Order: sequence, then C-alpha cells, then structure tokens
Amino acid sequence: MSTDLPVTELFGLDNLPYGVASTSTGAPHVVARLGDHAIDLGGLAQSAGGERWTVAWQSDSLNPFVAQGRSSWTAAREWLRATLADETRRDTVLRHLVPLGELRLHLPLQVGDYVDFYASEQHANNVGRIFRPDGDALTPNWKHLPIGYHGRSGTIVVSGTDVVRPAGQRKGPQDPAPVFGPSIRLDIEAELGFVTGGETRMGQPLSVDAADDHLFGVGLFNDWSARDLQAWEYVPLGPFLGKSFASSLSAWITPMDALAAAKTSLPQQDPQPLPYLRGDRLFGLDLQIEVRLNGEVISRPPYGSMYWSPTQMLAHLTVNGASVRPGDLFASGTVSGDEPGQRGSLLELTWSGQQPLRLADGSERAFLQDGDEVVLTATAPGTDGGRIGLGECRGRIVAAGSAD
Amino acid sequence: MSTDLPVTELFGLDNLPYGVASTSTGAPHVVARLGDHAIDLGGLAQSAGGERWTVAWQSDSLNPFVAQGRSSWTAAREWLRATLADETRRDTVLRHLVPLGELRLHLPLQVGDYVDFYASEQHANNVGRIFRPDGDALTPNWKHLPIGYHGRSGTIVVSGTDVVRPAGQRKGPQDPAPVFGPSIRLDIEAELGFVTGGETRMGQPLSVDAADDHLFGVGLFNDWSARDLQAWEYVPLGPFLGKSFASSLSAWITPMDALAAAKTSLPQQDPQPLPYLRGDRLFGLDLQIEVRLNGEVISRPPYGSMYWSPTQMLAHLTVNGASVRPGDLFASGTVSGDEPGQRGSLLELTWSGQQPLRLADGSERAFLQDGDEVVLTATAPGTDGGRIGLGECRGRIVAAGSAD
Repeated sequence: MSTDLPVTELFGLDNLPYGVASTSTGAPHVVARLGDHAIDLGGLAQSAGGERWTVAWQSDSLNPFVAQGRSSWTAAREWLRATLADETRRDTVLRHLVPLGELRLHLPLQVGDYVDFYASEQHANNVGRIFRPDGDALTPNWKHLPIGYHGRSGTIVVSGTDVVRPAGQRKGPQDPAPVFGPSIRLDIEAELGFVTGGETRMGQPLSVDAADDHLFGVGLFNDWSARDLQAWEYVPLGPFLGKSFASSLSAWITPMDALAAAKTSLPQQDPQPLPYLRGDRLFGLDLQIEVRLNGEVISRPPYGSMYWSPTQMLAHLTVNGASVRPGDLFASGTVSGDEPGQRGSLLELTWSGQQPLRLADGSERAFLQDGDEVVLTATAPGTDGGRIGLGECRGRIVAAGSAD
Repeated sequence: MSTDLPVTELFGLDNLPYGVASTSTGAPHVVARLGDHAIDLGGLAQSAGGERWTVAWQSDSLNPFVAQGRSSWTAAREWLRATLADETRRDTVLRHLVPLGELRLHLPLQVGDYVDFYASEQHANNVGRIFRPDGDALTPNWKHLPIGYHGRSGTIVVSGTDVVRPAGQRKGPQDPAPVFGPSIRLDIEAELGFVTGGETRMGQPLSVDAADDHLFGVGLFNDWSARDLQAWEYVPLGPFLGKSFASSLSAWITPMDALAAAKTSLPQQDPQPLPYLRGDRLFGLDLQIEVRLNGEVISRPPYGSMYWSPTQMLAHLTVNGASVRPGDLFASGTVSGDEPGQRGSLLELTWSGQQPLRLADGSERAFLQDGDEVVLTATAPGTDGGRIGLGECRGRIVAAGSAD
C-alpha cells in the first residue's frame, strides 16, 4: 500500500471540504474530501487525538459540527491538516480513507431556513431589462439593501439528484387566461450557497463583523427556475412555485478558512450603505465558476463581481431580529459578470430565449430540455499557493410526471 | 377527588386539541386539552390501550404523530374520545390530567417549511387599494391561483412569547434616501395556520382531494408585519424582513376531525379555476375569529369569507412537484370580511393609519405601540352540537433592542 496521500490538484491539503457519506453497509457520517478519497472524520478523530469532534462527526449531517462555532471549526481544520501532514500518523490516516467511488454522498445539511439573495448587479440589471422593459432595470431599493426572499428548504437536494420538470400555470401577454402544463422555460441559476453556523437569538441582530463568524462555508448551488411559472405568479409576493420544486447543492461544503486567499475587495458601493451594512469584514470572493450544459461550458460567471458581501447579506437577514440556526443556508443569487459569456442563467445567456445557444452537437437551447444535464464547478486561489476546487453541483432534467 | 371530567364550554370532548407541554421537572411531551387541564397522552395511551401512539406522544413535538397520516389521527381521536367517555377508565384518565396552570406550553411543532398564502379577497382588495392606489386592487393572477410565498420557519414562536419590535430600512415617498430604525408601522395579521401531515415525495403533486388527507389540523396564527419595512423591500421579490422577525402560533392545534361541523361551502369562484384546483373536497370553515388589543375586541374576522379552500392551497403548493414534510405549516393569509369591523390587520382597520382606532382608555392606535398585547381567539361549531374554541394566540410587543 502506498503511503502517499491521494491528493489531486484541486482537492489537496489546503481544501478539505466537508460532506456526509455512507458506504453500502454503513450509516451516513461526516467526511472530508482529499483528492478522490473521503476521510472518515469521526473514525480518524477517535484514533488520532480529535476526540473533541468525534460525536459531531459521527452525525448524519454537518449540523452538530456547524453548531459549534468558529473557534471549533478553525481548531478542527488545524488538527486535521496537522494530522494529515504528520508522517507518524500516516498509517492511521490511510486506514480512514475511502475511495469516493465506494461512497454515496448525501445532502450534507439539514437546512432549516433557506434565503435566496439577488446580489449580482449585472444579473439584476439583466433580469430587470428582460422582465420590466419599460421601467428602470434596478428597483429603487437595490443599492440600499441586499434584496432576498425565503425559498423552500425541504426541496433542496444533493448534487446528482435528478430534477423533475415542474408543471404549473403560465400566461403569456397575449393569452386570454392562464394555461396549465409542464414548464416550457426551465432555467438554471448558478449561485453560491453559504452555510451559517453557530446560533443567534431572536431580537439580537448580527453586525457585519459578527456575521463573519457565523459563516461556516460555501457550496455550489443551482436554483432551478421555471421562468414561465415565475413570471405569472410573482407579483405581488415574489417567486413561489417557479423556484420551490428543487434546488441543488453540492455534496461538498468548503470551509471559509480554505477561502482565505480568495477574499477580494467588493466593487465600489455607491451610495454608501446604511451603518448596519458597514464594517471591517466586507469581502468578495475571487471564485471562477463554470457552467456546463451536457458537458459543454456555456458560461464562466466570476463571483468576484458580486455587489454585496456575504457578511452584509447575513447582517441584513438578522437586522430585524430574525434568528439563525446552525445549518441555515443563504444563497447569493445568480452570479453574472459583465460579459455575455459570464451570465449565470439561460434567461440572460439567451436573452429570454430570443438568442438561443448553439451547442457543439448543432442543437439549440433557449431553455432546458428533458435529459439535459447541468454541472456547476468552481475554483479559487488556495492558501498554499495553488488553486482549490469547489465540489460540483450536478443535476439532470427528467420529464414532468416521471418521478419514480 | 371528583370523578367528573374538567370540561369547559369551548374545550369539551368534541374538541381535544393537541399541544406539547412540560411540568417544571419533566420533559416536553404531547398533550390534549380538556377544559382547563391537559391530558398526558403518552401516559394515558400506555395505561389504557393506546400503545400504538405511545412513542409518538412521548416526543417533544407533534411531528412524529403528524407523520402517521390520516387513518392514525382519526383512530387516535376515536380511541381518546372513547377512553374519556368510558366510566370504567375514569380513574386512569384522571391520573393523567394536569391543570394547565402547572404546565409550560411549547411550540407544538418543529416547522420545516412555512408558506403564507393570501387567500382573502377582501384583504387582498384592501391591501391593493392601499399599496397600489393607481392600479387594479387585485393583481391579474389573484383569482387564478392561491398566491403564496415562503416565510421564515425558524422565527415561529408559541403563543405567549414576547415579540421584539423589529428595526430595518424604510423610505417614505418623500424621503430622498432610506432611513434606519425601529419599525413605526408594526401590525398584526390574523390568520389560520394549517399543519400538514403524512409525507409526500418530490415530483408527485397532491390533488385537491388527496390534499385533504394531508391536513392534520389548525391553529391561530399572527403573522406580525412591519409595514414600513415591507413597503420598501418587497419589490420585486416579495416580503422578507417585514415579516421574518416573528410569527406567533397558538399552543393548541385543533384536529381537522374536530372541525367537521364547521365546514362550509366556498364563495363562488369565478373564473372557474384550472382543473388541478378542482375537486370534491373544497371547503371553507365557519370559524369566527376575535382580535383583542389590550383586552378590547377590535375586529371579528369571519374565516368563512375566505376565497380559496385549504385543500386548493395545498394542491397548489405541490403542483410543481414540491414535497411536503410532516410539520410543515401553511397559513391562510390575513382573514378579512366584508365589513370594516371584520378586518384582520391594523393596516386595513385604520386604512394605513389614516383612521386610527380609538380604544376604551381614550388612546388612539394607528399601529402597535410597545407594551401592546394582541390576542386572537376563535370559535366554531363542534360535532356534538355546541361550539368549540381554538387555543388563543397571544403576543406582546417589547421595545426594539430589549431582547433578554
């Protein structure tokens, strides 16, 4: 048996994202990814001086670990990195490695509340121009607060889960009445999902700086959207069935500590936000996303272009006194850059279907067809000088009515 | 010791709502209310032939019981009614009764997803006239689908919990920029909350008739609303911080079986809804709500005036394939009747603050002041010929920044 660690270029010792996995015979438990293997963290902790985390890591979700808060997360990561680097522990480590091919990956969190933000100025501009061509693209509130709304937590699924095409009502401007049927404008939204940890109390808002200590990590997130259902239903109370049928989260949650070198400054915020949205811990993330449709890259959204800091989003979410539970999730909203090839939704990439994409096989896509598979991947600068990868977020569309 | 059961007029053998309670020394467990007492259901089940439900009723939430589905709920209620009526079991029953004064009542559910509908035509009309005076009061979709949106489940609190006045951004039409501070237009929304049970699978919608079997019961629900925050934030993605700071649910959930005699026909639905919103199990509920502000009745909203059936709301919620978990909650939206004295929010009762209420103590209210206490109660026809009560939904406003 080799005594080398099975690191790969994007999943080395500076990455170590967390997930939940099971073998064919065992119960789901917390793991960390190293290359094309997963580390059974509960087992390793018990054997190698990490007893402080054993119970949390034997859980079937990340929630107990996420609940422990920043100091425990950082200590756990330091212990894990040191243990992996320690040649005298190498045999112990290798005993707790399992090839990914032998594991089933589960949704890593029990998500309490899920909020979706709308933090890309380019995306909001594009959508505003498409949906409200006669008005201002950005609503008057957009630069004063990170707009967000609650989505459905119970239909968040792990990467790899098929997505059934939703049915619902739609009504075109010329239709005399709404019609019912499978969505004909099924779309993706390439986003980051932020996992919140620690716990807050009702009536006690988080400042921007305090919010930073409640950010556990990030995953890639596809907020599948039925644009025809959404357009008909969303006035006046916002998106509902156009979004709630499914959202996909990567199986791997990359800890914020692994993204320390990816932190960048935000775009200039003008007008200056109100004081509760100011602080020292404002940042963007230099994270390059790729969107593949049936294997072909159709977009490269740069997360670094996002207008609002994740810490501003979380501070805003709690400023009215709303509490946050470990395992709550907020997503960034669609990531779209300045260039046409950087847009994170088909709505924008095809300009509402008017300019279909031509794929390598010669077919065209305005929106998703049954059988289409979408994969989000991303890389970012790592803390050891190279790049790290986020776990992929994969989903395939199956026909309406075909749930097994 | 008397061998009479401690029934009261509104909480007799035809009511028996469920809750979760604890004594000063014991763990929370499932109880049913009988008059001014609670029955320890797990204990009674173990002693009197209800072993089928013992484990579920020893839980600290209604979720395991709610997960069992319609046939179990109906059988449990029949067993409980028969046991309470059985004179030979009377001593056993009395041993499992605890005066409410000796109990602490808890939030009866672990709420997964919470959706708020907007099912009162009168309320939607009033709000439309107030918020959008230059447009049609009802949006074009209103009579085609039950409009709804997701709210925050993690800030649903049990009746009796103080509500901290939320702070946030507001911007009046004349203000050059938004300002930050405690809400100055804090409101109530008198609603019913419907608890869903059983479990559904993603991609498999519920018909209207199937939805009926997933309705476990109802509670009174106050969807506290900060109108100033809401007005500034809600375009284009709907209410967020204006609602997410707190929602109050009664401690008692009345089973749908107890409301059999309260079922009424719906108002005429014109235009006829699409086929997926049709079925045999369409109903309203003849349920009279009272809203008290500091002890004084300020409104009497009749639930019988609601436009959409709860079964239509649940069928709509799942028609896109969204799954429902046991303990998910959907609320009706504010209940407002035809008359000014039947409106379920201060926004409507005071017409956006322009016509303040004059209270018995001579003071006026446009919106809620710190220290104000709001209590929702309701009664409905019972199955034994009299009336039954819903458990109250009580909440008191405390000043912003005063969370303990």
